[in-house]
Amino acid sequence: MSKKNKLRIIPLGGLGEVGKNMMAYEFGGDIIVVDAGIMFPMNDMLGVDYIIPDYAYLLDRVDRVLAIIITHGHEDHIGAIHHVISQIPAPVYATPLTRGLIEAKLLRNNAQDKAEMVTVQAGEKSQIGPFTVEYFHVSHSIPDAVALAITTPAGLVVHMSDFKFDHTPVDGWPTDFAKLAEFANRGVDLLLSDSTNAERPGWTPSETVIGPAFDKVLKEAKGRVIVATFASLISRVQQVADATAKNGRKMALAGPSMVDNVKIARKMGYLQIPDELIVPLDQALKMQDHKVVLMCTGSQGEPSSIVGRLSAGTNRQFDLKDGDTVVLSSHPIPGNEETISKTINRLLRRGAIVIHDGIAPVHVSGHASQEEQKLLLNLVRPKHFMPIHGELRQLTRHADLAKQVGVPPENVVVVENGQVVELVGNKMMLGERIPGDYVFVDGESIGDIDHGVMRERGQLARNGIMLIDISLDKLSGRLLNEPEIITRGFVSPEDAELLIPEVRSCVMEMIHGSGLDNEKDIISAVKSYLYEQTKRRPMVFVTMSKA
Amino acid sequence: MSKKNKLRIIPLGGLGEVGKNMMAYEFGGDIIVVDAGIMFPMNDMLGVDYIIPDYAYLLDRVDRVLAIIITHGHEDHIGAIHHVISQIPAPVYATPLTRGLIEAKLLRNNAQDKAEMVTVQAGEKSQIGPFTVEYFHVSHSIPDAVALAITTPAGLVVHMSDFKFDHTPVDGWPTDFAKLAEFANRGVDLLLSDSTNAERPGWTPSETVIGPAFDKVLKEAKGRVIVATFASLISRVQQVADATAKNGRKMALAGPSMVDNVKIARKMGYLQIPDELIVPLDQALKMQDHKVVLMCTGSQGEPSSIVGRLSAGTNRQFDLKDGDTVVLSSHPIPGNEETISKTINRLLRRGAIVIHDGIAPVHVSGHASQEEQKLLLNLVRPKHFMPIHGELRQLTRHADLAKQVGVPPENVVVVENGQVVELVGNKMMLGERIPGDYVFVDGESIGDIDHGVMRERGQLARNGIMLIDISLDKLSGRLLNEPEIITRGFVSPEDAELLIPEVRSCVMEMIHGSGLDNEKDIISAVKSYLYEQTKRRPMVFVTMSKA
Repeated sequence: MSKKNKLRIIPLGGLGEVGKNMMAYEFGGDIIVVDAGIMFPMNDMLGVDYIIPDYAYLLDRVDRVLAIIITHGHEDHIGAIHHVISQIPAPVYATPLTRGLIEAKLLRNNAQDKAEMVTVQAGEKSQIGPFTVEYFHVSHSIPDAVALAITTPAGLVVHMSDFKFDHTPVDGWPTDFAKLAEFANRGVDLLLSDSTNAERPGWTPSETVIGPAFDKVLKEAKGRVIVATFASLISRVQQVADATAKNGRKMALAGPSMVDNVKIARKMGYLQIPDELIVPLDQALKMQDHKVVLMCTGSQGEPSSIVGRLSAGTNRQFDLKDGDTVVLSSHPIPGNEETISKTINRLLRRGAIVIHDGIAPVHVSGHASQEEQKLLLNLVRPKHFMPIHGELRQLTRHADLAKQVGVPPENVVVVENGQVVELVGNKMMLGERIPGDYVFVDGESIGDIDHGVMRERGQLARNGIMLIDISLDKLSGRLLNEPEIITRGFVSPEDAELLIPEVRSCVMEMIHGSGLDNEKDIISAVKSYLYEQTKRRPMVFVTMSKA
Repeated sequence: MSKKNKLRIIPLGGLGEVGKNMMAYEFGGDIIVVDAGIMFPMNDMLGVDYIIPDYAYLLDRVDRVLAIIITHGHEDHIGAIHHVISQIPAPVYATPLTRGLIEAKLLRNNAQDKAEMVTVQAGEKSQIGPFTVEYFHVSHSIPDAVALAITTPAGLVVHMSDFKFDHTPVDGWPTDFAKLAEFANRGVDLLLSDSTNAERPGWTPSETVIGPAFDKVLKEAKGRVIVATFASLISRVQQVADATAKNGRKMALAGPSMVDNVKIARKMGYLQIPDELIVPLDQALKMQDHKVVLMCTGSQGEPSSIVGRLSAGTNRQFDLKDGDTVVLSSHPIPGNEETISKTINRLLRRGAIVIHDGIAPVHVSGHASQEEQKLLLNLVRPKHFMPIHGELRQLTRHADLAKQVGVPPENVVVVENGQVVELVGNKMMLGERIPGDYVFVDGESIGDIDHGVMRERGQLARNGIMLIDISLDKLSGRLLNEPEIITRGFVSPEDAELLIPEVRSCVMEMIHGSGLDNEKDIISAVKSYLYEQTKRRPMVFVTMSKA
């Protein structure tokens, strides 16, 4: 096989969903990037705001990156775009709505000048170096989403980013089955496909089942209805708007991202909401309760979101009142279940009626379930299959499905981020593993906290700290003052009051009695003492000055 | 209404599932306690081992506590028993298996002499002071579980602890419908009932659906099968044993709690496992792989459990090997989803085949779903209803169900722990709120960490710490040495190398330039500086000595 015919497929990032946030295709040294999203931190990633994929591989080859192609406008596909383009000045290809959402994000991050934007339409084709990229429509929980067919001399690859087979989507534009059939006729060498719901049997319900559910909620609610969802779930906004109009209410938008995104989508024609249906928030707050629908963020219980603040009683513009109905129109992102449950309990405690997807169909998934995944495989009839967009548990299931529908087991590969897969002479094989990891974003700067820092945070968090400050006389080695002792997160103030004098005497005895005078020995003695007394192991710090 | 006729119903504990772990009934000053379990910490309860209910109310009335009645042998109902009886020396009433499991727990905690145990049988009745307590059988995921009918001059209360209506339970002993009908005939003034699955429509499947699922797994597995479940899920052990025998394998038990509990249950006749089916673990490890089933704990991905250690490659007695099948026979406890997912991914990464309840029916819930809850309400036809064993979200749903089946809305009450409910003259009303909270157990001692400590741990964890030690000359106020600076969990070592000298110069400038000499001002200046540089807010500590 000539090396010239080799397509390299590179899922970027650390552990986590494979290729979800960013992937690269490399042929003859030229590279196209697909998506540039963020990942939300897990519960044990203490203090992390969000995570971006590690794209060090691209930074070593900046000049060879010909394009960044974005499949749709959700945060996990566009959220890192301002970081990426500030280091990789390649043109960004996107459909009109996706482009609008990217531009809004760049504006918020003062990076609007850095991006060269190229608008593409579903059904079109771009020639980008050796890559022929065809964009085709897929239905998902945001309009204007596309998947990609990427042709190189190595063969035809179909890249199915987030999708479902919704026959009655809110925007009336189902997944482009004809294109999929056409690719099958041309012969697909490799299919990559969304595994999010690979553990879910059956067929994901159509978005349209949500309409009647909202209609019922708005009809039955005696007071205000507060609907929380993701700001980028544009089709959900359409459905709530439709139900609002039908029930003689008016809709107000709360929160900057919700306001921004709705504005963009309306301006571009992706949301059909008449002007008279929307009222400013301050006006809505003065209207009769049963005339109002408030649309906001916070469906995942995020403490800083509007619903999070309402549940805690700390929202600035308005509070919950008796008779309010709060609708959480989303499904818990794995790991958020506990936070959401807490938020629901708090909202109930404040007297709200709470409706969520466990009670009424106010949310459906935007991702294909097993029957759709099998249909895709049978439609496309790929020679090789590589599940993406999932953790190992979902990828493994998706691989099983592919084998069930007849893809030869040796032609199915399950890899994790950083593992290069190569397509050469129409054969798929494993390439090398490139280094890669999480890149944690906390505060201003990127990537300067690592697993070591995270581990230290975990240690601090588990048992707290004790600080001991010791001043010794340089000559005699005797204490100049009683040691100063501070604890945090270790024991209650009452217990500290008892424990600290004991530790102080202990330390004084060590120094005067046993002649200990180095920080390490004192730390180790104090640790043993504290463990004996409390069965806990706080981090102990000793600062010692000699004067 | 005479005060003498008042029954007080007191769910004990902090936020969390109402009355799940402990409840008290009080009549004329006499008290009986139902259950004494533990709760597992939530993700933001940093460093907490487990939580026990706050029973300060009982401690003020120790002499009036006539009995502690335990409904079944699961940890969330018996886990705190050694704490409770060490402070409240009342007799403990339990059915034989429950008693056996309690005694094993007391033995492990060196508290075996403290408890006076009273064995009761389903169908029996105890007269305990003013309380007539009838025990009747309910099916649940452990044998020998009972619910209670409590009669006092205030009326008849039915207390349904964990239950399901399994018509074909593993032990062949369904819930005692006749008793429920009998109570209905006598007239039930108040029903309290398990709300765990109040958001789950339909009917919880029978435990017997699990049998064929395990049979299939054991038949198809080419290597060893490692089954993880709770050590107290005694009926699950029976089913795995049956499948083991059927497939010509032998079973070994791993982990002290699993070994203990199986021994007790076999000895008492609650497990029917022939001797020749069980082999010691070390023998099993030498047998041919396809002849072996290993039964262990860790179905919730607990890092210290056998499955947790296998997934991390740190188990002592044996490792995973290619061809192993790991079955997680449980459903994620809310909040554990992420840990379990991580464990599944790690097991897959180590080459195991992983089967969980999302893939095959290797687990069913032990709790009644909505149709069963409605059936119970219709069977018992209570005058009043109080949902228990759930958070507000489940209790609210359960209350809705009760209203749907005809309990008058004014006769349904949803309360949280600490809210006393009174039954007097056959009428239910709210009593006072008693103080109560979580009692966190971390290490040796109980209850000496509180929300303040937890909050500090959260602060330490989010952004880490910086310690600055300053020694000043007593007379001149000038620095004796350069300040010593330590950080943990704040920035990476590389960044610390850059940042620390800058902070040091800053501090020196503050002292020598601006003449600052108190810790508070320096802390506040350093905090501002660090926020400006990193957009993070670590906890900053300054220790200052003057010599």
